[in-house]
Amino acid sequence: MSQLKTKHLLGIKNLDPEEIELIFETADNFKDVLNRPIKKVPSLRDVTVANVFFENSTRTKLSFELAEKRLSADVINFSSSGSSVKKGETLLDTVNNILAMKVDMVVMRHSSPGAPHFLSKHIDANIINAGDGTHEHPTQALLDTFSIRERTGDVAGKKVVIVGDILHSRVALSNIFALQKLGAEVMVCGPATLLPKHIGSLGVKVELDIRKALEWCDVANVLRIQLERQKMRYFPSLREYSLYYGINKQLLDSLDKEIVIMHPGPINRGVEITSDVADSEHSIILDQVENGVAIRMAVLYLLAGNVE
Amino acid sequence: MSQLKTKHLLGIKNLDPEEIELIFETADNFKDVLNRPIKKVPSLRDVTVANVFFENSTRTKLSFELAEKRLSADVINFSSSGSSVKKGETLLDTVNNILAMKVDMVVMRHSSPGAPHFLSKHIDANIINAGDGTHEHPTQALLDTFSIRERTGDVAGKKVVIVGDILHSRVALSNIFALQKLGAEVMVCGPATLLPKHIGSLGVKVELDIRKALEWCDVANVLRIQLERQKMRYFPSLREYSLYYGINKQLLDSLDKEIVIMHPGPINRGVEITSDVADSEHSIILDQVENGVAIRMAVLYLLAGNVE
Amino acid sequence: MSQLKTKHLLGIKNLDPEEIELIFETADNFKDVLNRPIKKVPSLRDVTVANVFFENSTRTKLSFELAEKRLSADVINFSSSGSSVKKGETLLDTVNNILAMKVDMVVMRHSSPGAPHFLSKHIDANIINAGDGTHEHPTQALLDTFSIRERTGDVAGKKVVIVGDILHSRVALSNIFALQKLGAEVMVCGPATLLPKHIGSLGVKVELDIRKALEWCDVANVLRIQLERQKMRYFPSLREYSLYYGINKQLLDSLDKEIVIMHPGPINRGVEITSDVADSEHSIILDQVENGVAIRMAVLYLLAGNVE
Repeated sequence: MSQLKTKHLLGIKNLDPEEIELIFETADNFKDVLNRPIKKVPSLRDVTVANVFFENSTRTKLSFELAEKRLSADVINFSSSGSSVKKGETLLDTVNNILAMKVDMVVMRHSSPGAPHFLSKHIDANIINAGDGTHEHPTQALLDTFSIRERTGDVAGKKVVIVGDILHSRVALSNIFALQKLGAEVMVCGPATLLPKHIGSLGVKVELDIRKALEWCDVANVLRIQLERQKMRYFPSLREYSLYYGINKQLLDSLDKEIVIMHPGPINRGVEITSDVADSEHSIILDQVENGVAIRMAVLYLLAGNVE
Repeated sequence: MSQLKTKHLLGIKNLDPEEIELIFETADNFKDVLNRPIKKVPSLRDVTVANVFFENSTRTKLSFELAEKRLSADVINFSSSGSSVKKGETLLDTVNNILAMKVDMVVMRHSSPGAPHFLSKHIDANIINAGDGTHEHPTQALLDTFSIRERTGDVAGKKVVIVGDILHSRVALSNIFALQKLGAEVMVCGPATLLPKHIGSLGVKVELDIRKALEWCDVANVLRIQLERQKMRYFPSLREYSLYYGINKQLLDSLDKEIVIMHPGPINRGVEITSDVADSEHSIILDQVENGVAIRMAVLYLLAGNVE
Repeated sequence: MSQLKTKHLLGIKNLDPEEIELIFETADNFKDVLNRPIKKVPSLRDVTVANVFFENSTRTKLSFELAEKRLSADVINFSSSGSSVKKGETLLDTVNNILAMKVDMVVMRHSSPGAPHFLSKHIDANIINAGDGTHEHPTQALLDTFSIRERTGDVAGKKVVIVGDILHSRVALSNIFALQKLGAEVMVCGPATLLPKHIGSLGVKVELDIRKALEWCDVANVLRIQLERQKMRYFPSLREYSLYYGINKQLLDSLDKEIVIMHPGPINRGVEITSDVADSEHSIILDQVENGVAIRMAVLYLLAGNVE
């Protein structure tokens, strides 16, 4: 396989395993580039990419922006604060206006699940979903599974537990899809109030006991407690969450094996994970960040070739 | 004519028709460039342009920024939010500070009518007015008349009605000047509360009945109801405005002719214009957006050559 | 001396006079570049600089950004508003995340004194302190002393008074260090409530009477009254401040000598300085701004060579 079947990256759900593998191999090459003194390639010269963020996102936006600049693309940033979105314009009008200015690719974050899918039916540019509400966040899942592959050699056959607030996460669903497509076994673990009701139907194991989950897994992807998203109604308090689900060194040391620790960031140190775990040699948290740029370069590069 | 007489673009009022024609011919060339795979030209290499926006403006700023980048200029963005403007600095001090950093051109939006004219008397850089309050917005008028010329062949002799909130518009006055200089007949149409008292003195027809206005015109430029600008005191309600002045397909179909439909955006769909009109084949709304980049490239290019 | 001993520019306190001189000589060269038609040099091609501003700063950020772009660096801007900082992330995690994306240099402003020093012990990239609370602001002190050297020929032996709100200033301390290292005599002058208690221990003269201070000095660096920083409790009112410490033409004319007038901006005209003084031939305020870009280019250039 030498190119993606799709013109857009809307989610992991409709990607083939071979397409994911192609993205990984392309990211391998870009990761080599990023470790050279000259980190820039001319691949997307004369391509204009608009980063259209209807929700704030420091790290995802920064990662895409760096990926675009290192591919030599022309980069335009659009954020909804203070924009015509506030003036009552529709999403489609906003994006059509941006595209009428001859933009080739749109990286979009939006609070509404399905927003990029809707757009992809109406516009010509390549669309990359940088997170649509609590639905999909495909580049995050790609960088996560890429990082597992890098650390452990292969994703297939691995046991991966996703820990924490699955309900409000934009990371969980894409990760489940990606891990399953690549042959991993997936478990979710968290308080019942933070697990979606339908989660069992996705073919994942469900575990309420963090110790049992850790005893089972090879890799633990510890999600962030998204304080700002929650209304805190049915939720255990932060102190309770930390007590029953927080990953700390004592807990890990009590297991008779070693687990790879991941976190999509930003970390609430002392809540979902303690510093001695986040900064340990088993943590690949900063590798995830580094790989994010390479994965996004790969996605941008492969999609840029897929123009109708 | 091979160059503009002016060093700044402060408004349409002081432009000659020949200067407008020069801008159009230059924009024709840049529009060809924008439709090539390689959309970038080196014309403004080593020119630094500062976009100084004291008011928010998503689309105008984005359009200028794209125009600058496609001319290979170095681009610096300055917006007043969180800036030294809040710290009590004068406009002239703010701009002088930016210019002391060796900036060659300033694209400025400001809420006060006349702000760019004031500046132009005190600083050396080229100034482009990107909207000064409800006064002028010359590049918008240029892209509007350029779009009429493109669709209809010529602006001269055309009948153009500007519909809606003329009073609070930064678009209307510049459009009236540009249309008249190019030989069009101009009418304004809207509720009496949204028409400036002096408007008749500008040599435009005034019409309160939208049907009569549409029966008269070849082109209708439908302005946005600027909800955020109005205090709503004497104003018809949105429902009333839409009922009496909203442009819908039924209204247009009842005329025995076809009218070119324009809108500077962002659109309030269902208020001043319905979707079936905005998206119809008679609408050149997205052409306006596309032409905006070419017009701004032309203005930047021509002014950059006019340094004292 | 051909290179700095340090990998970071955290403050003036630990710089040698020879290092300051090296920065000045490098800035001399860049200032020549800035006065050429082609103001860009390829020195930092393939270097990625992140401007990480946890506090707003229009002019300092703009100056750094221009310096970086004229050195051909790739520039990434990060500001705390709407960022993961608000989501509870630690400073170190935020910066480590940015660095994991292969950023080479970090220009940082932070409200906490010592923040860049703390970071420098934990990360590999070069750090430039763009202001840490009321502690140091080294590039401002360098551009200030560079501007004195430019106007008067030499800093050594000059008498410089820093006037105003020393207590809340991020400029004063770095200026005192730089001036003393270069052999100037330093005085501070302001109302007792705006002078730090320990200030005498730094080896500076303290003077409450502005007339006596001006009679003594060759150069007066007039600080901004930072209205937004002060709670106004012990403070003289603005009117009182202006009356007793404001620098006006009448006051300067009554001296039997000429004084070089400086101000770091933004100016409150009519408060700490009147317009006829700020805009007079004795004022080098805009030279300071212009020199700021050259100084920052020099610092970026010299540090970029100091990678471990």
